[in-house]
Amino acid sequence: MTTKYSIGIDFGTLSGRTVLVDLDDRKELDVEICNYPHAVMESQLPSGLKLPADFALQHPDDYLHAIKHTVPELLKRNNISPDQIIGIGIDFTACTMMCVDKEGTPLCFKEEYSDNPYAYVKLWKHHAAQKQADKINKTARDMGCKWLERYGGKISSEWFFPKILETLENAYDVYENTYRFIEAGDWVVWMLTGNETHNACMAGYKAMWHKKDGYPKKEFFKALDPRMENIIGTKVSDKVLPMGAKAGGLNGYGVSLTSCKEGTAVAVSNVDAHVAMPAAGITQPDKMLMIMGTSTCHMVLGEQEKSVNGICGVVEDGIIEGFYGYEAGQSCVGDHFDWFAKNCVPSEYLSAAKERDISIHKYLREQAIKQRPGESGLLALDWWNGNRSILVDADLTGVIIGMTLATKPHEIYRALIEATAYGTRMIIDNFEKNGVKIEEIYAAGGIADKDEMMMQIYADVTKRKIRLSASPQAPALGSAIFAAVAGGYFNSISEAAETLGKVRELSYEPKTENSAIYDKLYDEYALLHDYLGRGTNNVLKRLKSIKAN
Amino acid sequence: MTTKYSIGIDFGTLSGRTVLVDLDDRKELDVEICNYPHAVMESQLPSGLKLPADFALQHPDDYLHAIKHTVPELLKRNNISPDQIIGIGIDFTACTMMCVDKEGTPLCFKEEYSDNPYAYVKLWKHHAAQKQADKINKTARDMGCKWLERYGGKISSEWFFPKILETLENAYDVYENTYRFIEAGDWVVWMLTGNETHNACMAGYKAMWHKKDGYPKKEFFKALDPRMENIIGTKVSDKVLPMGAKAGGLNGYGVSLTSCKEGTAVAVSNVDAHVAMPAAGITQPDKMLMIMGTSTCHMVLGEQEKSVNGICGVVEDGIIEGFYGYEAGQSCVGDHFDWFAKNCVPSEYLSAAKERDISIHKYLREQAIKQRPGESGLLALDWWNGNRSILVDADLTGVIIGMTLATKPHEIYRALIEATAYGTRMIIDNFEKNGVKIEEIYAAGGIADKDEMMMQIYADVTKRKIRLSASPQAPALGSAIFAAVAGGYFNSISEAAETLGKVRELSYEPKTENSAIYDKLYDEYALLHDYLGRGTNNVLKRLKSIKAN
Repeated sequence: MTTKYSIGIDFGTLSGRTVLVDLDDRKELDVEICNYPHAVMESQLPSGLKLPADFALQHPDDYLHAIKHTVPELLKRNNISPDQIIGIGIDFTACTMMCVDKEGTPLCFKEEYSDNPYAYVKLWKHHAAQKQADKINKTARDMGCKWLERYGGKISSEWFFPKILETLENAYDVYENTYRFIEAGDWVVWMLTGNETHNACMAGYKAMWHKKDGYPKKEFFKALDPRMENIIGTKVSDKVLPMGAKAGGLNGYGVSLTSCKEGTAVAVSNVDAHVAMPAAGITQPDKMLMIMGTSTCHMVLGEQEKSVNGICGVVEDGIIEGFYGYEAGQSCVGDHFDWFAKNCVPSEYLSAAKERDISIHKYLREQAIKQRPGESGLLALDWWNGNRSILVDADLTGVIIGMTLATKPHEIYRALIEATAYGTRMIIDNFEKNGVKIEEIYAAGGIADKDEMMMQIYADVTKRKIRLSASPQAPALGSAIFAAVAGGYFNSISEAAETLGKVRELSYEPKTENSAIYDKLYDEYALLHDYLGRGTNNVLKRLKSIKAN
Repeated sequence: MTTKYSIGIDFGTLSGRTVLVDLDDRKELDVEICNYPHAVMESQLPSGLKLPADFALQHPDDYLHAIKHTVPELLKRNNISPDQIIGIGIDFTACTMMCVDKEGTPLCFKEEYSDNPYAYVKLWKHHAAQKQADKINKTARDMGCKWLERYGGKISSEWFFPKILETLENAYDVYENTYRFIEAGDWVVWMLTGNETHNACMAGYKAMWHKKDGYPKKEFFKALDPRMENIIGTKVSDKVLPMGAKAGGLNGYGVSLTSCKEGTAVAVSNVDAHVAMPAAGITQPDKMLMIMGTSTCHMVLGEQEKSVNGICGVVEDGIIEGFYGYEAGQSCVGDHFDWFAKNCVPSEYLSAAKERDISIHKYLREQAIKQRPGESGLLALDWWNGNRSILVDADLTGVIIGMTLATKPHEIYRALIEATAYGTRMIIDNFEKNGVKIEEIYAAGGIADKDEMMMQIYADVTKRKIRLSASPQAPALGSAIFAAVAGGYFNSISEAAETLGKVRELSYEPKTENSAIYDKLYDEYALLHDYLGRGTNNVLKRLKSIKAN
């Protein structure tokens, strides 16, 4: 019998990354990456038309381009014939929303809309719908909508319905002529198979959909805008498939993109962070996965639905069928250190790094690692980009205390790293306080792979062992796992994840003597966190409002 | 009649600066500066002997050297004959303490003590007597000593008796063989005239002396150490002369140093900061003078003695006879900005400054001045070197809040400047709350002369007009004023100050629109100041104690 393979495609913010997985040998065989030609459009459209503030758009053609320039190349390079491919799975950033016609053609492909920003893809980090998010939150609170609790009490401007409402309010003709508003991930699956499907993960985390209750009621949408009353079942499909389902088989167009065989199984789409969980082999509760990059996403499986304040969401079967998938997040992690390296590092440090031909981050870490916990006397609150969990407050800002005339830059750098670790512990403590246990931590993403000092600090601060996802392309591997299930190679995601999901041998154990000091520092963090973050002293918000005026 | 002159010598931390003042023409004619050959000895004695931590010593020979290399040169260069000099006045850093024998010979001049650190001059910033200061404070509190109130409730390790007690405890033979512990300023006057005198300013501010009550009682010193019981009247002289008095006339040795005429009047010594007050023409109450350098010293004249918490001291006739002289201080001003420039400025800023051949401070100010108050959203507490007034707490540390990923280095720089302005306003408000009015502000020192942006911010924050002392050598000019009074050219310091003291034409008026914003920001500063500085949340001290362990 010939070897069987599955393909996973991870659609990130700037590129598509495709992995080829050898199912019989249980290993990732090869990877191919393709950057999006239009990348992120934040200042102008291809025509040169200037975009309003806070816009972040993409071009749907880039996604097709990425498939075409990765999948066939992998087959060719590894000398694999199309019938050896069991299935294809994809994951996507979310909520990344598109508007399409009945055939699935994006409105921006049509000449009459090619110069209309609202006809393009609104990327996850499109931030122009805050006003609409505020309206949705207020309306939900006023109407006593119980579903708001599943989202930690507040939905984000990055999500599905704020983005739709923004289009309705600002570009009604686009709204009117849209047949479906759809996640880009679901749209790509539609293009590959000809079947319009919607996945439970994106619908659940980003569009207030619930397995038993469905979407919010008509009355709610009517209260937002009478023109939206009947949106569910018309412009937003109410047919949502569970995770692990097969969306269909490759159609002719899908074959032309992938060079795979017609009818090859395609899994329903997935969210890039969530799909990394089976890639790390996590199929049981009480384990948290952190995807650590510019920001950090925290995911936990639970056996019961608990109401946890300040999380991003809890969705039944949202990550793996049979479990409640919880998601929380920190909005400023890698971004934090980049800000510091760009703005606060003196030339003496830069020259020293340059002389040794190492990055400034590596140089700063080399200095910082020599320090013992608490040695700098510094403490920071990691709110440079607001606080996602557990305060859900974009108006909070950064804090650092304890400086003296002897304070050195690498000490501040370390304090910022420690602050993000305290932020993670706050999320863990909050989960546990609300009945969601977390016994072990798994980490994936660029920081987890590269930054040993940071990972040790996280283990010491959280007082938990941290394992590392073995794949450098964890989301793509996760998609290949879903693809293998859709193609019938495995019976369940759990089985596939246990077989293909992998962690590295290297793991981080908390060091008791460090944890003892970090316990004290975390108490100080928690005290300031509540004082400045929960309204006792709203100075951060007042400063922001003085700044705005 | 030939023109009359007076001479003022300002003994700073690193040099002696002498001015020649034309009394008839009422102007500073010339200045001569001489650096101390030994500068500040912080790591070793001239012999190479290593010094303990926190030591800061000087060599008494350097003071005589500075006189010899400035006064004769000024006479010669300006073609002035010795009998045209009406008087000589000096001011000194304080408390800068020496131990001498009966002839006034410093113990460190004797071979048997030349290698003993305790036999040298303890400079004002010698910080090795904190333990002794703590003991003095505790004893004074335990015994209910009322004089502690005059020093804002706490005396500093930099002062006279902590330094003496340190010598007693650590080098008893030096203590035993000392005839007098004396301020270096009084010692220089002794050398010039042959008369041992002690001035009310140094005794009052640095040695707990009071015009009516004298020094603390025997019982107090006995409680500190039985060997100290009878120190007053023996190792510490109790003959204290008022400010403006004549100490005597030049003796033969004084003539050899100055090339002036025997018998030329020499004024009693003065403190460098305090003597700058008449140099700015201030002879009336309700005016505050700020001497702005690495740290800031604030002086106010009052007509009554008020108990003001958190000040450095209040001394009757301590600055100008007939008034209560109040002193407060901020321990981190210029030092603050130097720390920032050295540790937190990215190479991009340094290159831009270099390209235009300007200092990094000038470049940062150019960027910062473009900002409106509150525009950065930042707020800092200026405690990088602890807080002198009004919290008198060396264990407090720096705080900065409000950072985002868009925060720029020059915004932080401006926030640090603003923080020192809020600190000054806190001192002013505290004075006024305790009955000492402050209607106008005068400024002298390097920062006042050079930094227009900072002075405007101070005017806006304090909501008061700020005038600038006209002399670039304000303390030396002040000493020349006291010299002219001691020589009989004027009848009083007030008359001399009104004639010779000068302010620049340039002054800074508060801008109403800026003050309105700064009022709000100052309220936020005050709230955090009390929360973190007065014990509600002692996190800064706890971090420091974790650091120490």
